[in-house]
Amino acid sequence: MRVYDLIWKKREGKRLTREELHFLISGFVRGTIPDYQMSAWLMAVYFQGMSFDEVTDLTLEMLHSGTIIDLTSIPGIKVDKHSTGGVGDKTSLVLLPLVAAAGVPVAKMSGRGLGHTGGTIDKLEAIPGFNTGLTKEEFLRQVREIGIVITSQTRDLVPADKKLYALRDLTATVESIPLIAGSIVSKKLASGADAVLLDVKYGAGAFMGDYEVARKLAETMVEIGNRAGRRFKAVLTDMNQPLGQAIGNSLEVAEAIRTLQGKGPADLTELSLTMAGLMLWLGQRAGTPETGKQIAAELLHNGAALTKLKELIRAQGGNPAVADEPGLLPAAPVVRQVTARVSGWIAAIDCRELGLIAMELGAGRLRLDDVINPEVGLKLLVKIGTQLVPGTPVAEVHARNEADAARAQEKLLNCLKLSDSPPTLPTLIREII
Amino acid sequence: MRVYDLIWKKREGKRLTREELHFLISGFVRGTIPDYQMSAWLMAVYFQGMSFDEVTDLTLEMLHSGTIIDLTSIPGIKVDKHSTGGVGDKTSLVLLPLVAAAGVPVAKMSGRGLGHTGGTIDKLEAIPGFNTGLTKEEFLRQVREIGIVITSQTRDLVPADKKLYALRDLTATVESIPLIAGSIVSKKLASGADAVLLDVKYGAGAFMGDYEVARKLAETMVEIGNRAGRRFKAVLTDMNQPLGQAIGNSLEVAEAIRTLQGKGPADLTELSLTMAGLMLWLGQRAGTPETGKQIAAELLHNGAALTKLKELIRAQGGNPAVADEPGLLPAAPVVRQVTARVSGWIAAIDCRELGLIAMELGAGRLRLDDVINPEVGLKLLVKIGTQLVPGTPVAEVHARNEADAARAQEKLLNCLKLSDSPPTLPTLIREII
Repeated sequence: MRVYDLIWKKREGKRLTREELHFLISGFVRGTIPDYQMSAWLMAVYFQGMSFDEVTDLTLEMLHSGTIIDLTSIPGIKVDKHSTGGVGDKTSLVLLPLVAAAGVPVAKMSGRGLGHTGGTIDKLEAIPGFNTGLTKEEFLRQVREIGIVITSQTRDLVPADKKLYALRDLTATVESIPLIAGSIVSKKLASGADAVLLDVKYGAGAFMGDYEVARKLAETMVEIGNRAGRRFKAVLTDMNQPLGQAIGNSLEVAEAIRTLQGKGPADLTELSLTMAGLMLWLGQRAGTPETGKQIAAELLHNGAALTKLKELIRAQGGNPAVADEPGLLPAAPVVRQVTARVSGWIAAIDCRELGLIAMELGAGRLRLDDVINPEVGLKLLVKIGTQLVPGTPVAEVHARNEADAARAQEKLLNCLKLSDSPPTLPTLIREII
Repeated sequence: MRVYDLIWKKREGKRLTREELHFLISGFVRGTIPDYQMSAWLMAVYFQGMSFDEVTDLTLEMLHSGTIIDLTSIPGIKVDKHSTGGVGDKTSLVLLPLVAAAGVPVAKMSGRGLGHTGGTIDKLEAIPGFNTGLTKEEFLRQVREIGIVITSQTRDLVPADKKLYALRDLTATVESIPLIAGSIVSKKLASGADAVLLDVKYGAGAFMGDYEVARKLAETMVEIGNRAGRRFKAVLTDMNQPLGQAIGNSLEVAEAIRTLQGKGPADLTELSLTMAGLMLWLGQRAGTPETGKQIAAELLHNGAALTKLKELIRAQGGNPAVADEPGLLPAAPVVRQVTARVSGWIAAIDCRELGLIAMELGAGRLRLDDVINPEVGLKLLVKIGTQLVPGTPVAEVHARNEADAARAQEKLLNCLKLSDSPPTLPTLIREII
């Protein structure tokens, strides 16, 4: 087999066989296939796409490049979730305690944030003392003991994805549906869950701006997962405005806690309950997603989910008191309010830019080795459809110093696009696949 | 400027500016841009193509990566030619002496063959003693003294093309019109001629099978050449059957000599005279291509072009007696005839396969460092439209030994596709652009 022929074949829009993909992926991981051939192949994939069969084979080859976590020792149906990433997306922090409180085991490996979107691990690390670097033994023991664990992805999970992603990132081949799907699903399969709920976001603050593209990605991932013998479902959710108000690690943890206290923003509460319902249904704890949602709502209102969050924090070395008093979380020294200067309805929000402003305040990373400041960030106090008059409070900036705050204040108002009449409101959950 | 952005821009089908192409090509030649980014860019070019403006900028950037030959010290309009390569294409050996005999200076740098097609340098080296490795001074002196010189391309001509081609060859990005055009035209511009006639071949034995693709390539190269301030013309010629009969270096030189003796195959004679007419017109030695063709026909029939060939051979150290007696050229020890086994008209010839059979006999190279045997090859005695009965002589095999000859004999008949009725005959010269 020659790499040249495989590049040519993909360039011509033909399907590579499982054997050919094995040759390609294993050779690339071993280093016998040079980067310059792989990047040409990746660009050919960008243009020609892949059939469901082919992308499933690719995903399985990526999966088998590394360790596969074995969760069979944990009783019950293990249900994982994944978000394609959005601005202010702290859903996992609400959702996972809800699911665990209902008795579905949560054995979760999460990632860190990059660019304008955050990561669950960074958020959890805003809780003083919280340890996200568990060993495999600690991980399995904790889920058996308290039914919930969240840790960083181990390094040996899908090495093919790490190497491929690094190359894609330098060669403008990231934005390819089969390559994104292969990357996400291989990691989900390697994490060992029986079922997976995918939260695929679209809109200005999401990785994919376009709904149709996000839908195609969701469909592809569900197909791969099901063909690989697991149950996969996907929700397509709007990311044209931040979820909730908070953007920034400590602020997002506090918002998640308030949500589990029954005092959270409507959109975050709704999405968390809907997704929890789906996960309880996938975990056979509920006969339908709707019953699951009712169970989740009960566990939110009776405090059981908040208690589960406290158990999680305590088990991983953090201070569980934060779950009763979010004020114990690290707070920024400078908090400044931003108010509207003109009148109008908010018609659109440049959500990606909001994510970048938060990143510049220190809440996120531009590069993988940047250090995060947990206490800084933003609170966006308005939504699409909010009517403004001069002086309406629009946002809070939480900064390290006055200079940072002033810069963020200046940029913030430019993220809001106003109109003279009330706009159409976005639908939070557009479709379930 | 970041390479990533240039890959992305091309992937999105946008035009790169001259400055961006300069950054890309000069960085690649210097080694500051890695192969894996360049190959992704090349694949994006394969899919998105380039406008005439953009491919002209690319070509000029490639041109300026190395030495540009200065022919201004030679009086008159210098006219170069280039063939995209075909099976049995010995046109240069007939055409260039014709043009030089008419007083248009021929200062030609040629290449070697690869795969199923041959190269002029390999053919000339079949003449014992012929030196194709002239210095720049020898090259210029000879064209001033006798009006014709043919030598190997110097190594410092368009280094960007050498490096790009090596990468394209490994990444399935050879078959891209802008990349082919940039490669050919940059070398023609670097060779210093004022005008260039391109012979763009299409059909089963050509690099491009499809007429429309060949036409697009011809049009692109003429556009680039003209935008670069030189006069470029192109002929689109049929390569669905070998030109003349001979395939193999010594055999082709002998056939070229017989053509200059007025005893050559009709197709080779016709193409050589037509192209000579165009070159005399480009060189302002004739008012129209037709007058140029008449002048060339005279110089062929009065022996002046053959005399010019002898001068060329003598000047470059070869034995000019071969031009009177082609039997002095190296001859293969084993010559075997192939005859038809069934009846029918020849409807199609697998010309590429014929080229590969000749290559396997030792007439060509599979790899750049393979050594050629000048004496071996084929003579195809039939054309599309020839009527066969069992026993009709079809071909001659000229081989090193019986085993080689037997293998070639076996394969040869499979190259001929027969029909029950006379087929449509191909048109040798389909269009002049």
